[in-house]
Amino acid sequence: MNKLVQSITSRDQDFAQWYTDVCLKAELMDYTEAKGFIIYRPYGYSIWENIQSYLDKEFKRTGHQNVYMPMAIPESLFQKEKDHVEGFSPEVAYLTHEGDESEEKLIIRPTSEVLFCEHYRKIVSSYRDLPKKYNQWCSVVRWEKTTRPFLRGKEFLWQEGHTIHATEAEAREETLGMLEIYRKLGENLLAIPFTTGLKTEKEKFAGAIETYAIEALMHDGKALQSGTSHYFGSGFAEAFNITFQDKDNQLKHVYQTSWGVSTRLIGAVIMVHGDDEGLVLPPYVAPIQVVIIPIQSQKEVVKNASEKLYEALTSQGFRVTLDDSNRTPGWKFSEYEMKGVPLRIEIGPRDIENGVLTVSIRHSREKRQIPINQISHEIPKLLAEIHEAMYNKALKHVKDNTYVISDYQDFGPTIEKGGYIKMSVCGEEAELKVKEDHQATSRVIVDEPLLYDVCPVTGKKATQTILFARAY
Amino acid sequence: MNKLVQSITSRDQDFAQWYTDVCLKAELMDYTEAKGFIIYRPYGYSIWENIQSYLDKEFKRTGHQNVYMPMAIPESLFQKEKDHVEGFSPEVAYLTHEGDESEEKLIIRPTSEVLFCEHYRKIVSSYRDLPKKYNQWCSVVRWEKTTRPFLRGKEFLWQEGHTIHATEAEAREETLGMLEIYRKLGENLLAIPFTTGLKTEKEKFAGAIETYAIEALMHDGKALQSGTSHYFGSGFAEAFNITFQDKDNQLKHVYQTSWGVSTRLIGAVIMVHGDDEGLVLPPYVAPIQVVIIPIQSQKEVVKNASEKLYEALTSQGFRVTLDDSNRTPGWKFSEYEMKGVPLRIEIGPRDIENGVLTVSIRHSREKRQIPINQISHEIPKLLAEIHEAMYNKALKHVKDNTYVISDYQDFGPTIEKGGYIKMSVCGEEAELKVKEDHQATSRVIVDEPLLYDVCPVTGKKATQTILFARAY
Repeated sequence: MNKLVQSITSRDQDFAQWYTDVCLKAELMDYTEAKGFIIYRPYGYSIWENIQSYLDKEFKRTGHQNVYMPMAIPESLFQKEKDHVEGFSPEVAYLTHEGDESEEKLIIRPTSEVLFCEHYRKIVSSYRDLPKKYNQWCSVVRWEKTTRPFLRGKEFLWQEGHTIHATEAEAREETLGMLEIYRKLGENLLAIPFTTGLKTEKEKFAGAIETYAIEALMHDGKALQSGTSHYFGSGFAEAFNITFQDKDNQLKHVYQTSWGVSTRLIGAVIMVHGDDEGLVLPPYVAPIQVVIIPIQSQKEVVKNASEKLYEALTSQGFRVTLDDSNRTPGWKFSEYEMKGVPLRIEIGPRDIENGVLTVSIRHSREKRQIPINQISHEIPKLLAEIHEAMYNKALKHVKDNTYVISDYQDFGPTIEKGGYIKMSVCGEEAELKVKEDHQATSRVIVDEPLLYDVCPVTGKKATQTILFARAY
Repeated sequence: MNKLVQSITSRDQDFAQWYTDVCLKAELMDYTEAKGFIIYRPYGYSIWENIQSYLDKEFKRTGHQNVYMPMAIPESLFQKEKDHVEGFSPEVAYLTHEGDESEEKLIIRPTSEVLFCEHYRKIVSSYRDLPKKYNQWCSVVRWEKTTRPFLRGKEFLWQEGHTIHATEAEAREETLGMLEIYRKLGENLLAIPFTTGLKTEKEKFAGAIETYAIEALMHDGKALQSGTSHYFGSGFAEAFNITFQDKDNQLKHVYQTSWGVSTRLIGAVIMVHGDDEGLVLPPYVAPIQVVIIPIQSQKEVVKNASEKLYEALTSQGFRVTLDDSNRTPGWKFSEYEMKGVPLRIEIGPRDIENGVLTVSIRHSREKRQIPINQISHEIPKLLAEIHEAMYNKALKHVKDNTYVISDYQDFGPTIEKGGYIKMSVCGEEAELKVKEDHQATSRVIVDEPLLYDVCPVTGKKATQTILFARAY
């Protein structure tokens, strides 16, 4: 079919349908014949490439090295750390080959802690070998029952960092350092103000001592866990016998961390910034930052001016598309709005005559007149301005939708509005009751003094302040 | 264990053992508990990252886009193209989940032609939608019985490009264009003179009309197929019904190509350039291009000069390691020789006094005296010189080990020496006999006039000139 620009469901009418519409119509992904598995189409994959490029530089800058571990894990290896295997068992898929049924069962990695542990055990013997700070970019398989594009799938792309250290202090520093790199990814690239914090005991990763998370608030008021950083202590090291001879000649177990973000971040970008016209992309992660649309493109003067502008912006390092296809300008406007391109520049005979171009800003739907000879100078400033405005808008959304309550009666009506609810609670008993009553979960423990002394949910002594939300 | 520099088997004594020694001792890879699956360690993975970085730029420069297709392929989809499924069936592994036995069987991609076909069928309808030029970086699984690091494994990393076009001419141009990009990868990055050419009918890819390959000659005289580029015609398009409405309003099938290289290239680099001291890396693909080794590194003047040199070369964009660990200089020399680092710079108190540094060139084992103030200027020239010398040495190896024979009696003694044997033969009958008699296979059809009229193998009329070799 010739793709026509089709209207999408409005967000307020049906947010879930709006999300699916945007994923498909902005050509981010497509479904496949294998249920729960998706295709990352060029436009969607390109967002991931920009995230990868940013993070890979940060990982290397902070002394990490990339490796690639096999996708196959012998089942016996996977079962060595008890909490870990319990957490993942229901989701585990197997790799089989007909005729090899007698060999040991291989699982397809849902995460690779055990492979890194086994390798580290072999290659580390002295404090001189530490730390080891490895990362890998790969896909993992988890047999999810219900799936949604980018948010939950049977296979997804991610990075998983795994590090080992000689001391607890250094491992804890790594855990928090990587959390901060993720927070800055939001601040610098995705224009998403992530809330960071410790997960509760109930919500932490299978095998971790502590799990920290970055959480984002979507337009519909639901939260999305967007990345995690775990401190493992020596739990895995003991299960896998990863030891080293320390400076004091004592044989010790290493301290370990792991941390990861996935293509789920694409879902976060869509649901934080999108609007009823489709995707709205923050400029630094956008596959196309500027689209140039010639008006009366058959005219030589327009053709020349468009190409000159394209060359000028491209050579400045921007990601630019010049759409000189024979579609109508109207079709193109809708198409690139749907795709969330931050800036659109129209260029027609009259604009060239007047020496002034109209630049349309996707996120604010604002138009600006910019003299042609100042375009190269103005575009970088405009992109920075857009990034900041989008970040601030998302931050305002978080602030406007964070509620402090002290009376549990208020929980129901408040959570219906969407957003975070902050309460000081007794602990897991309150978490369980909130989940049962309102399908809301603890997102992170807030590093703030208690709001009050008595848990509004159970009437017991409050011990920690928690941000609750309904979540994806 | 504290890793000591260990001697490796010499190439002439046992080339296969030498290869394994280098893979392990240069820390390129390690084995895992899952038989046939390997770990790409940081130093080995980094070579792959440099290859990826070079090729990804080339692919994008020539209008290709990256995507990611699922690793799971429904078995029925895989079976649509008859030749294709026959070629791959024995090697196919399955993805299973306990409790889902009634659902359709999923295979784990050994290659992704069918997924691209199915997707293209859905998204293409008009000549305006063509060409589509997609590529993906991923791992694939093939159930190989005998495996060797990088050369043949149950899982390997690769890129697979899949393109569709409106005309045969354009698809053929793409097939040859990508072959040329691979040939240049050898010329510009790997310092390997690839021999390019068409595969015979017997050796072509399952489902292709024509397969072109890049072949390299290893130090031991065996050939390694290092990449392929296929022209599919409309075979898959007909099996998958990928049609488009052409300018003339006729409904037509698309013309298709695919092409790929894998981590096998790492094996090629090892076996073309390595020597009895270990790995020898061409400078542009080397993870570390220059290693700086301070002598008496505790002295302030040495420490300062080393750091200054490190900063200077790093800021010029070179990949530099400053090894100021407390190992002995002798240990370090052996270690970086084993790892094949192209240039080593020693820097001690006397060198600083004299204002002249000793630079050791790995591949030629030559030493040069370079004034400190000219180092920044000389290093890029030296790296270029090394690249060219390594390329020429490898080219000479190919020339010196390519034999033209016209008497089949000569085949046995000649192939024992190793290298390529060029013969004009009748066709598949000769290929089969050569394989049975001498375990040598047709590598490529040489695009040259016939050497003579009668096939030396069968006595029948010669129809094509072929390069034979024993191969990995």
